[in-house]
Amino acid sequence: MNHLPTSPARRSLLAGSASALAAAGLAGLHQGASAQAPAAKPLPGYAGWKKADALIVHSSTTIETRRGAFGTSVITPSDQLYVRNNLPTPPESIVADRDAWQLQVEGVRQPRSLSVRELKSLGLETVAMVLQCSGNGRAFFPSKPSGTAWTVGAAGCVVWSGVPVREVVKALGGVADGGLYMTGTGGEVLPAGLDPKSVIVERSVPLSAMEDALLAWEMNGEPVPLAHGGPLRLIVPGYTGVNNIKYIRQLAFTPRESEAHIMSHGYRISPPGSKGDPSQPSVQEMSVKSWINSPLPEDGGQAAGLVQIHGVAFGGMDAVKGVEVSTDGGKSWQAARLVGPDLGRYAWRQFVLQARLPKGTHVLASRATDARGRVQPEMRGENQSGYNNTSWADHAVTVTVA
Amino acid sequence: MNHLPTSPARRSLLAGSASALAAAGLAGLHQGASAQAPAAKPLPGYAGWKKADALIVHSSTTIETRRGAFGTSVITPSDQLYVRNNLPTPPESIVADRDAWQLQVEGVRQPRSLSVRELKSLGLETVAMVLQCSGNGRAFFPSKPSGTAWTVGAAGCVVWSGVPVREVVKALGGVADGGLYMTGTGGEVLPAGLDPKSVIVERSVPLSAMEDALLAWEMNGEPVPLAHGGPLRLIVPGYTGVNNIKYIRQLAFTPRESEAHIMSHGYRISPPGSKGDPSQPSVQEMSVKSWINSPLPEDGGQAAGLVQIHGVAFGGMDAVKGVEVSTDGGKSWQAARLVGPDLGRYAWRQFVLQARLPKGTHVLASRATDARGRVQPEMRGENQSGYNNTSWADHAVTVTVA
Repeated sequence: MNHLPTSPARRSLLAGSASALAAAGLAGLHQGASAQAPAAKPLPGYAGWKKADALIVHSSTTIETRRGAFGTSVITPSDQLYVRNNLPTPPESIVADRDAWQLQVEGVRQPRSLSVRELKSLGLETVAMVLQCSGNGRAFFPSKPSGTAWTVGAAGCVVWSGVPVREVVKALGGVADGGLYMTGTGGEVLPAGLDPKSVIVERSVPLSAMEDALLAWEMNGEPVPLAHGGPLRLIVPGYTGVNNIKYIRQLAFTPRESEAHIMSHGYRISPPGSKGDPSQPSVQEMSVKSWINSPLPEDGGQAAGLVQIHGVAFGGMDAVKGVEVSTDGGKSWQAARLVGPDLGRYAWRQFVLQARLPKGTHVLASRATDARGRVQPEMRGENQSGYNNTSWADHAVTVTVA
Repeated sequence: MNHLPTSPARRSLLAGSASALAAAGLAGLHQGASAQAPAAKPLPGYAGWKKADALIVHSSTTIETRRGAFGTSVITPSDQLYVRNNLPTPPESIVADRDAWQLQVEGVRQPRSLSVRELKSLGLETVAMVLQCSGNGRAFFPSKPSGTAWTVGAAGCVVWSGVPVREVVKALGGVADGGLYMTGTGGEVLPAGLDPKSVIVERSVPLSAMEDALLAWEMNGEPVPLAHGGPLRLIVPGYTGVNNIKYIRQLAFTPRESEAHIMSHGYRISPPGSKGDPSQPSVQEMSVKSWINSPLPEDGGQAAGLVQIHGVAFGGMDAVKGVEVSTDGGKSWQAARLVGPDLGRYAWRQFVLQARLPKGTHVLASRATDARGRVQPEMRGENQSGYNNTSWADHAVTVTVA
């Protein structure tokens, strides 16, 4: 082993374009979409405790983690975690007495209201999982779908603690006959003068998702912050963010999906040019995905062209089996090494490949494979709203060694 | 399953005394030592970003996590993590350009200075581990040793990322002949007018500890805060806090232990009444330990006497195999359940036992067993300075259900 130079001649990774598409001549698009420069917007009050220089504030309800801020130590710190709210954040008063928060449970044999205090006596489990907005990667869609232009930072790996939903259901006599969906209702204050169904945050997931679901009062070792759904959030591991209902006030086992607009027409995988409707697939289970977090075009110099290419990979519903990295835009691939503790199948893994990059421009890409052998695809699945982008080509980065 | 009452008749866990010893008639001692009431001292400037209500400020260099703040989601958030500095914290300027920080490596075939930037190109690993001050649990020593009266909160489970020391050594040609110890030197500014050896933070560990050691630039997903040793800290998993050298400026492979006072006379397991000297064992490897974090005497009410008794357990150098919980002061024990992700042998596990506590006073204790079958002892090992307290009796809590 003699890979350290005695004379520290250095090369620099100079700013390049933001993705492999840029190398393919679409740089204009990506300069527009990559949002790498600091946003001028300040953090909104409910998220004022977050680390501004690690974040991109798109709006008062949409805040993204910078790609360069993810680091390598698995857990995304709460003060760097993205925020995406569908309605204005409830007032701080709802976290003044967390244990008093009430959850109504319906569609069980013994429906009733339970306080967080009572829930805490019924069971305890902890799960590490990727929390990811359905629209993460939307910025890479050439169609420029409406909605926040997230690149990679509407995601994080978070640890939740709470009571398993199945324990609560067991204590209430089990799911009542005909319950096929688990439907959560958020506790946001609804805007006046509108049909509640048109605005309420209420989502249904298949009953099978109950098995690993939690009603969580703790996130990353602290009471769930208001910005992330405290005092109580429904956690459905493997499902995109919107299914993890914040400030949950009702959990119901229902024969049908909710008729709220956010379920029936929102968050649907619609063909390009069409509107969402209940016949289309809903955005629910995540699938295999990875991306590189370092080096990035905006990084400073690297010593002697020797680089640790690292990033994150997850399988959605399944563990990651492996990750390959390409330094030539996907023409050839090398197996990366998974590093750090394995926090279970819903968490992400860190991967690293040590490479010596010669002078020139390099398109770095990563491609993950899940435990069932499913490989992250090259191309995104086109859809009207820019959901579920797992394309490795879209997530590639171009760096130049001078 | 019918453990949820239809009528929510509640019992309360009222404030009791702080440990099993209290039940044995030593309540006076423990009211003095438990430090459960908020300390009046403000957070020092370098730690001003921490969560004051989760902490007990003993002094400007000693800050403890409250027992009730540990939570159940494995990782101790940085803003709740304890601090113990042996010298005043260096100025913020040392973290202004983290990548420029220089580490001198000696006792290798090709000794040289390396910047953090260069270290980042040599390797990457991540480890989750218990960081614990050697004096954690000192408050429970009846002898009232001098030093901070820590109860349980001079400990946390932290994730570190950096380069494995063994990769750095390999790049520098290997350990030079005669190297038996790995000796780290801290970058603190030394008080003027004193013999440097009498104050410098320099500690030696056996060469074998190199295998899992890191030079870490990241903690819990963020650059290592100055308060915790940034820009670069030596991490020696399984070894007590003082061996994990902050702001490390030199790493040397040496034929002998450092002659610095903190190594030769400080942190020694001295018989009661004697002073530390080099013939006594140094405080290095941790051993099996656990404690309960909930319920605590200071908690509020619990519903209907049904309680999730939970806490943390770790093995030091080995994984935890199991934890038992007693609700009668150690007369009888029940197996607790380990919950949440397993972050590897150096991390702690969360344990939980669901119990129905009838009206009355209960002494709750936990007792861990490591993967080699070593059981956490009932009694502390008496020593002059109050180090390495792993006694389950000392860490028990007394709660009263009214």
